[in-house]
Amino acid sequence: MEYNFSDKLAKLKPSAIREIFKSLTDPSIIAFAAGNPAAESFPVDELARLSSEIYAESPVSALQYGTTEGYMPLRRAVEARLKEKFNIGRSVAAGDKYNDMTCIVSGGNQGIELSCKVLCNDGDVVIAEDPSFIGALNAFRSNGAVTLGVPLRDDGIDTDALEAMLDSQPKAKLLYLIPTFQNPAGITTSLEKRRKVYDIARRHGVIILEDNPYGELRFAGNDIPTIKSMDEDGIVIYCSSFSKILSAGMRIGYITAPETLMQKIVVAKQVEDVHTNQFFQMLCYKYMTECDLDAHINDVRAIYRRKCGLMLDSLDRELPKELKFTRPEGGLFIWCTLPEKIEMNEYVRRCLARKVALVPGSAFCPVEGAPCNSVRMSYSTATDEQIVEGCRIIGEVAREMLGE
Amino acid sequence: MEYNFSDKLAKLKPSAIREIFKSLTDPSIIAFAAGNPAAESFPVDELARLSSEIYAESPVSALQYGTTEGYMPLRRAVEARLKEKFNIGRSVAAGDKYNDMTCIVSGGNQGIELSCKVLCNDGDVVIAEDPSFIGALNAFRSNGAVTLGVPLRDDGIDTDALEAMLDSQPKAKLLYLIPTFQNPAGITTSLEKRRKVYDIARRHGVIILEDNPYGELRFAGNDIPTIKSMDEDGIVIYCSSFSKILSAGMRIGYITAPETLMQKIVVAKQVEDVHTNQFFQMLCYKYMTECDLDAHINDVRAIYRRKCGLMLDSLDRELPKELKFTRPEGGLFIWCTLPEKIEMNEYVRRCLARKVALVPGSAFCPVEGAPCNSVRMSYSTATDEQIVEGCRIIGEVAREMLGE
Repeated sequence: MEYNFSDKLAKLKPSAIREIFKSLTDPSIIAFAAGNPAAESFPVDELARLSSEIYAESPVSALQYGTTEGYMPLRRAVEARLKEKFNIGRSVAAGDKYNDMTCIVSGGNQGIELSCKVLCNDGDVVIAEDPSFIGALNAFRSNGAVTLGVPLRDDGIDTDALEAMLDSQPKAKLLYLIPTFQNPAGITTSLEKRRKVYDIARRHGVIILEDNPYGELRFAGNDIPTIKSMDEDGIVIYCSSFSKILSAGMRIGYITAPETLMQKIVVAKQVEDVHTNQFFQMLCYKYMTECDLDAHINDVRAIYRRKCGLMLDSLDRELPKELKFTRPEGGLFIWCTLPEKIEMNEYVRRCLARKVALVPGSAFCPVEGAPCNSVRMSYSTATDEQIVEGCRIIGEVAREMLGE
Repeated sequence: MEYNFSDKLAKLKPSAIREIFKSLTDPSIIAFAAGNPAAESFPVDELARLSSEIYAESPVSALQYGTTEGYMPLRRAVEARLKEKFNIGRSVAAGDKYNDMTCIVSGGNQGIELSCKVLCNDGDVVIAEDPSFIGALNAFRSNGAVTLGVPLRDDGIDTDALEAMLDSQPKAKLLYLIPTFQNPAGITTSLEKRRKVYDIARRHGVIILEDNPYGELRFAGNDIPTIKSMDEDGIVIYCSSFSKILSAGMRIGYITAPETLMQKIVVAKQVEDVHTNQFFQMLCYKYMTECDLDAHINDVRAIYRRKCGLMLDSLDRELPKELKFTRPEGGLFIWCTLPEKIEMNEYVRRCLARKVALVPGSAFCPVEGAPCNSVRMSYSTATDEQIVEGCRIIGEVAREMLGE
């Protein structure tokens, strides 16, 4: 049978990462390719205890249909936390120009996808950092948007290039950014650049979509204000999730945006999945209010601080100096750029043949097929031994290919 | 702030039912408007026990990212059940022309939305029974499709009108049907009509989307084969869910379609929510394999048999004969058509003023704004006393409006 697919979907390919994920079930592979949080980051015992309580206390509300906006107590708890930790959440009552509204979504990716769906027509342009998160890029493409990239520098997106891009792209609707511990590059945008980006977007009438799934995972350096906290004008949509701090498999995220925008996003969510899993929304709420989320996050940070430190030390020791890599202050990812002499796809193939899985950097190019000579590495799920051994192997492969 | 929404979403309104749902938190309202399953239909004790087992046995896989296609053991269990109960699932190995593939989605609505997304460009036409399920109609509209309706008769869609519609609509891509215990009408399509519809769709090169969320809830009459079971040519997508038999709030559904089509649907799902809640997928699987799902479904059927019988008896007794209503053999809904003398919106308003909530039938019109003088009633969540009292009230309001 031949089927006539929609134009939007006809070209869309499965995410390279999700495909790699399937192959990661082979336990002999060292999984530097995964974007999964560490298994130790899930507070299993507390979740088990709180789940029993839900079944005992309010089973029917946990198993019955809920509202599309999300479980109200969880929405309120998330709002309170966003205000406290990130100074997010404007209200007219507090003297702001507009009201923000927070809703629960089925993982951060849904928030990203819905934002694009309500704003972009076929052929509208979404601008992202180059490289950027493939799940978001594909979400934009699935809505018929054209994705374009602006180079990501050590301190964030290249603002001159961004300004030039916006001047030349009248159909630009959305600017997608992961300012903190960027996926895939591990880079954090400086405060100065965040202010500049906000100003550029405002002047060009473009909505910023700030994706911050790793924001609480800082293990070095100092916090930098979110772009959303600067949003006097109501031009920023903020997305995040519990995936990296409580459970990725439960698919609970949240989205904060000016009320008018948010109401449209709710309509779009309603037709996708009606609402997010009600039981786990209640579970998140109970965890936030009955357990010590901050203490738990500190534990998670300690895991990644150690793992990232181990990987950076190993890379310092093992990689030839021609390979350059980022030094993240949080999150899950390191971005490694190869010298011209090493062809990226061949490097990834040879590493995989030696049982180390890396993600080809080309997966993260906003413009598909653009040249890319980098790879993404994650330290989140590998054991300490695997990190040391994996770095040794990828160093060895690099030296081979450099002809050393 | 003014935002420029996408054309698709600019016009889309929140579902009237979901909005009514929000008002149903008022316990003094008799909720004939709800589409919620009965609270008694959730096997709370078993789900609680099995949940504890998951935390004890495999917490990390339950809380970690999963594959977009769904938890493999659950997919296999659903496939086996679909084969056994509905003769669904073709395979080349068994001598069929193509392979079917089953994936897990986040509630039946996501399956419907994804099917449209992968097939329809802006302006393509989806044909539905008139009336039809508003959640599906809005899902089609959110993808830029135009929804058109073909009258639903007592034995299913009007096949002559369908043939004429398809002849005149070259952009028709999808034919959306709920052949069993239709929402909102409670009507079941006859076997003869199912065969006819399949033949018409095949000849016109249109894909059938068969939605069957109530299929297991038959409490009278005999089973009729699904359209998917007739699908020699690979033109039927089949959607269903666990919402009406295990839990609506968990948002677990499934979709079966020819492999080529299904692979595209998986790509589309990946960008929406990556995958469905992993814990509850495992929970469904455990329930299917460790508990007696058939016995549980028999209990649920008994609940609705009794409630539906009570409502039909009450309507027979209370409603003036000018009001006509359907007599469902399963599912949750009764469709009541008012005489010309009673204006539908005014009737709904007056009933609500007397604390009985009905859904205005106009919500279910494939063509928005088309005239409709019917209402949808559900017997699923009201208590026995509420059913009797609610029918008395809506009868009284009808007599008032008829000037009796």
